[in-house]
Amino acid sequence: MRVVALAGGTGAAKLLRGLAASVPQRDLTVIGNTGDDTEIWGLHVSPDLDTVTYALAGILDVERGWGLADETFHCLSAMAAYGADTWFNLGDRDLATHLTRTRALREGQSLSMVTARLAARAGVGARVLPMSDDPIRTMIRTPGGRLTFQEYFVREKALVEVVGVDYEGAAAATPAAGVVDAIRTADLVVVCPSNPVTSVGPILAVPGIADALRETTAPVVGVSPIVGGAAVSGPAAALMHARGLPISPLGVAAAYAPWLRRLLIDRSDRACAPDLERLGVAADVADIVMKSRAHETALARHVLERR
Amino acid sequence: MRVVALAGGTGAAKLLRGLAASVPQRDLTVIGNTGDDTEIWGLHVSPDLDTVTYALAGILDVERGWGLADETFHCLSAMAAYGADTWFNLGDRDLATHLTRTRALREGQSLSMVTARLAARAGVGARVLPMSDDPIRTMIRTPGGRLTFQEYFVREKALVEVVGVDYEGAAAATPAAGVVDAIRTADLVVVCPSNPVTSVGPILAVPGIADALRETTAPVVGVSPIVGGAAVSGPAAALMHARGLPISPLGVAAAYAPWLRRLLIDRSDRACAPDLERLGVAADVADIVMKSRAHETALARHVLERR
Repeated sequence: MRVVALAGGTGAAKLLRGLAASVPQRDLTVIGNTGDDTEIWGLHVSPDLDTVTYALAGILDVERGWGLADETFHCLSAMAAYGADTWFNLGDRDLATHLTRTRALREGQSLSMVTARLAARAGVGARVLPMSDDPIRTMIRTPGGRLTFQEYFVREKALVEVVGVDYEGAAAATPAAGVVDAIRTADLVVVCPSNPVTSVGPILAVPGIADALRETTAPVVGVSPIVGGAAVSGPAAALMHARGLPISPLGVAAAYAPWLRRLLIDRSDRACAPDLERLGVAADVADIVMKSRAHETALARHVLERR
Repeated sequence: MRVVALAGGTGAAKLLRGLAASVPQRDLTVIGNTGDDTEIWGLHVSPDLDTVTYALAGILDVERGWGLADETFHCLSAMAAYGADTWFNLGDRDLATHLTRTRALREGQSLSMVTARLAARAGVGARVLPMSDDPIRTMIRTPGGRLTFQEYFVREKALVEVVGVDYEGAAAATPAAGVVDAIRTADLVVVCPSNPVTSVGPILAVPGIADALRETTAPVVGVSPIVGGAAVSGPAAALMHARGLPISPLGVAAAYAPWLRRLLIDRSDRACAPDLERLGVAADVADIVMKSRAHETALARHVLERR
C-alpha cells in the first residue's frame, strides 16, 4: 500500500513515526512544508523537512519536538559571544544538516536532491519530498509588520497579533518532481495533524497540489490538529482565527473540504460529527492525542485500516 | 613603542603571546598570512588569522597549537556521517568564527573588517590585519599535482614531495588597509618564528609589503623557526628545500636578507653567526625554543630590548 503524507513539523512527527512503524518505509512518501524555511547565520534551514527526516530516522528530540536527541549547543554559545542572533537554536550536530544543505544549494543542487541525500544518509527509507524546489515563504502579517514564520513562532513566541498569512512565491512555484505523481498514484493520502494554515496551507498553495488531491482516487484522510477548541501544539489557533476558520475540527475540515474524505477527530469533539458530515467529510471519532509511541502506532494503524 | 609582527600560524602564536604580555596590546599590530585560507564545508576558513586571534585572546588550544581550548567536535562527527570530508578538524565553537566570517564576506564586507570584528569580540586589544583583502592561495606543487596548503599540510600530513610553491593571486593583490602604514611607522618590526616559505612568504609576495620593510626606519628583527637543522614545528624544512634554501638560520636569513637587521638563533646554531653577518644580518644567540609561557615572555622581552 503506497501511503503519501502531507506533513508540517512537530505535529506530523508523531503520526509519521506511527506510519513508519506500520508500513514498510519504502512505501511511504512524505511531502513536507518548506514555507517556514529560513536563513540563519547564512545557512539555509528547513525546519519542517528536518523534523520529518529526524523523526523517521529515530533521532528527533521527542521531548522538544525539534532538533536532534542528545544535542549540544556549543556553536550557539560562541555565536552569542560574537553578537549574532541566537533566538533560533541550532545545535552542533544539527548544524551539519544545514551546512550540507547550504553548500549543495550554492553548488546548484535542488532542495529535493539534497533532502533525499540527507534522508538517505540518516538511514530513512521513506521518500521525503519538499513541496517545491522553488522558494516559498510563509509571511505572517502583524500590526507591526510582516514576519517570517520562524520570526513569528520562535523569536516572538507567537505572542503578536496575526492579521493575515501570505505564501510568498507560491503562485509562481511548481511542485517538486514526484509530488503530484505520488498523490495521483497513492493508495492512501494522509494529512498529518499539522497546522492547516502554516504547515499544510503552504503545500496546498503550490499550484497543482490541491488539484492532485481533488483528482486522486485514493482516499484522503486527515487527523485533526485541533482538540477541544485548541491546538494540540503550536500556534494553529491564532493562525486559523486570522484566516476566519473556526478553532475546531470544523475549521480544519473547511480548509480541506473539497478533497478530504475523512477526518479523525477526538472523542471530546464528537459533537462536531454531524456538522462535518454536512461539509461532506466523514467524521471518525478516536483518541487522537498521541501520548506514547504505542499510541502513535495505534493511531497510524487506525488511519491505515479505516481508510 | 609600536610593534608590528609578521605572523604565520602555530610558530607565531607563542611569540605573540609573549609580546602581548610585554607591551600594551593597543601598541601591537599583527599582519597575518592568508595564503592558507581555504573553504571547508562551504565556509571561509582563515587558519593563521584565527590562530593569531585565539592566541592573543588566550583561548587557543596551546597543546595542539590550533583551534580553541576545551573544544568539542560534534558537528564534525555529524558531517562525517553525511559523508563530508573531515580531514580538516573544525570544532563546534570554532565553527562560529567561520560562520560569522563567511556570512560577512558574502554580504560584501572585507576580510579586514570581519577579522577586526572577530578579534574585538574575542577581547583582543591588538590590531590583527590580514596581509591583503584579495584572495591569495599558497599552492604546493607536487609530482602528483597542485595542492592547497591545507591539503598538503593537514590532509597529506606533509608527506608528499614538494617541487615548488606558488602564491596564486599575489601579483595582482594589494596590501590590506593599514598594513604598509603600520610597517612604515613602527618602532620595531618582528618576524615571528614562522615558516619562511608558506607563512611569511605569502605576506612578502603581496606587492608593497617587502618595499615597506626595506624602507621602514624601524629595526626588523626575526626569530629563526629553524633550530639545529630542523624546523621547531611544521613542514618548513621540506618547503625551504623546495625553494633551494638551506635548512638552517642561513636559509631563513637568505629569505629576509634585503631588510632583516637581526636574527635570533638558537645557541646550538651559534656557528652560523659569521655566515649570517656576511649576509648583512646581525646574529643574536639565545634560547629560542619556547617551552613555557615564561619562556615566551622572556624571548619576547629579549626581542624588544635588544632591537
